[in-house]
Amino acid sequence: MYFSDRGYDVVVVDNYFRRKACDELDTGLLYPVPNLIDRAKLWHQLTGKEIKVIIGDLTNDEFTRSLFNSKSNYDWALSNNSHAQPTTVVHYAEQPSAPYSMMNYKYAGLTITNNLQATNNLMWAVKDLSPETHIIKLGTMGEYGTPNIDIEEGWLVVTHKGREQKFLYPRQGGSVYHTTKIMDTDLLWFGVRNWDLRVTDLMQGPVYGNETEESKIDPRLKTLFNYDEIFGTILNRFIVQAAIDYPLSVYGKGGQKRGFLNIKDTLQCVHKAELKPADKGELRIFNQITETFSVNELATKTQKAGAALGIKVNIEHIENPRKELEDHYYNPTYQGLVDIGVVPHLLSDEYMIHALEEAISCKDNIRRDVIFKGIKW
Amino acid sequence: MYFSDRGYDVVVVDNYFRRKACDELDTGLLYPVPNLIDRAKLWHQLTGKEIKVIIGDLTNDEFTRSLFNSKSNYDWALSNNSHAQPTTVVHYAEQPSAPYSMMNYKYAGLTITNNLQATNNLMWAVKDLSPETHIIKLGTMGEYGTPNIDIEEGWLVVTHKGREQKFLYPRQGGSVYHTTKIMDTDLLWFGVRNWDLRVTDLMQGPVYGNETEESKIDPRLKTLFNYDEIFGTILNRFIVQAAIDYPLSVYGKGGQKRGFLNIKDTLQCVHKAELKPADKGELRIFNQITETFSVNELATKTQKAGAALGIKVNIEHIENPRKELEDHYYNPTYQGLVDIGVVPHLLSDEYMIHALEEAISCKDNIRRDVIFKGIKW
Repeated sequence: MYFSDRGYDVVVVDNYFRRKACDELDTGLLYPVPNLIDRAKLWHQLTGKEIKVIIGDLTNDEFTRSLFNSKSNYDWALSNNSHAQPTTVVHYAEQPSAPYSMMNYKYAGLTITNNLQATNNLMWAVKDLSPETHIIKLGTMGEYGTPNIDIEEGWLVVTHKGREQKFLYPRQGGSVYHTTKIMDTDLLWFGVRNWDLRVTDLMQGPVYGNETEESKIDPRLKTLFNYDEIFGTILNRFIVQAAIDYPLSVYGKGGQKRGFLNIKDTLQCVHKAELKPADKGELRIFNQITETFSVNELATKTQKAGAALGIKVNIEHIENPRKELEDHYYNPTYQGLVDIGVVPHLLSDEYMIHALEEAISCKDNIRRDVIFKGIKW
Repeated sequence: MYFSDRGYDVVVVDNYFRRKACDELDTGLLYPVPNLIDRAKLWHQLTGKEIKVIIGDLTNDEFTRSLFNSKSNYDWALSNNSHAQPTTVVHYAEQPSAPYSMMNYKYAGLTITNNLQATNNLMWAVKDLSPETHIIKLGTMGEYGTPNIDIEEGWLVVTHKGREQKFLYPRQGGSVYHTTKIMDTDLLWFGVRNWDLRVTDLMQGPVYGNETEESKIDPRLKTLFNYDEIFGTILNRFIVQAAIDYPLSVYGKGGQKRGFLNIKDTLQCVHKAELKPADKGELRIFNQITETFSVNELATKTQKAGAALGIKVNIEHIENPRKELEDHYYNPTYQGLVDIGVVPHLLSDEYMIHALEEAISCKDNIRRDVIFKGIKW
């Protein structure tokens, strides 16, 4: 919708993975969301603008290639073939949850296959069929982990025994999911070096919020909002917990620090990256966060928003189900996106109060039993 | 056979991937080799020692788990269940060829799925069913690429802005295959950090030779010997080319330097690593090479062996089908295996002459047309 609204000709490809997983795992959603085809129709009715939706699985290599091949068997879906050489592909087609990947060997395997086959198929399709296409891939700040040195934007120049080499910043993730994100960066970095692809990798921090300027025009256009431990991100979860008087579950000491951003800024970042594409043979990496907070700071902010609405919010430190440092150095750089024109929406008290009000308005949809199940690793 | 001969109780699991790929791609073998079950029978007849063979695919998670589970449906294969908690697993179950992984998107995808699912299934099976098992995994020196600084043994301490962090040595591979090897190191490193697995990663250089003390007792016990560009390693290929007066194909300038080792030393390295396992929670990395040579040096050595046998060997510099540096810094450390007792078999003129004689004795099996097909990337 963000791109469509700005005059882009947009095709969205989805296999409904997250919807299906939410059903299968019975995670619960804060409010119902129509499927993608119905949302695209609605967007057309409301704005006169058209978004083409193709339902298919990018882990199927022939399907992925068909999207770039005007002569393919699938081209009924691309009636005017205008998309066979897209200027830009925004690659969001990954299993996005760390807890999902850690539930057991099956979900771990599924995460690996999904994330790497989708990326591999895309990389080869672009190389073979549309080599000028700019790939904007979603990475995660979690690839870096929490090293004891500053986190730079993707690259690190290492001096060793009097010689120098520039490397991809060394990364180690905290789950199988995070590890697959390291892997797909490595895979695309190979494609860039070997075939002169143009790739932007956005190392995104946890996103909060569910409303954008575009979705605002109709409640049915809102994004999926998960409040469970599998697909819900921390701030969204805390707000939902506060709304139903469920103590905020802080894992361990709560000193875990991460970089965050508003959902509006994720779109702004992708758009700015599209406007100024990576060069051929360039893997351009941005750390896509706008500010950093510890878990304790987010809990306190939620408590404060509750107080403003006359709600008492309790905080509960629970045994950490994850293996992670609870008190650590964290100093990431995040200047690149600002340099290409991103203007951040920082986390304000107004936002927190507004979000909590919204969660309260959906109170009847919130199921206490799906919030925390203690997936452990 | 090396382990069986030393009193170990050995189970070998194989899906015949390489045999099938050699057939499918019509790569040619220097001599026929009986299948694994027949070889195990032969070994038993000749030595009285028994090696159990299980044919199955480790990318099948349930099959892999059955190997560690005495109550599984597959346990007819492990009649006495003695292997359900093996002391050591030597994980060789990866697609081993860079050119194979670069032929097209299908072979790239197959390499990714095979190598990562086998590793993922093994890691979870050990964690869930046999957590004391020592995993010895085959890595490759190619994970490091050819950086402009010294290659250390697996780890690098980085000082940055006055702070210090120890990282896995930053790696970038020269093919999809090499990239999957980086990925599986990352995956096992996650398993080690998260679940206290014990893992040894052997960063092996290209192996030459096909004869060991154990295989020597009968020609049918020799290892598969490929001389094609897909599965053949460089020195083996050069020797075969010399045997039939096929000019040695040096890619580009021939200044590409790599670390090598004799096939006898690969077994010695795995055995020494087994005798002194990694600790729980330790990923121990050894650079498994015994000396380094440039491609030009190997060509010259082959030429010299030819001269000793009265054969003129020509060298042809051909356009490099790969994207790689042809003249670069290369200074890898390889001390760890020596420290635990490995005594290297260095590349001697005697070895070269012996190998060339053997190739000449199999001359009638050598097909010129399968040696070089120019798989390009």
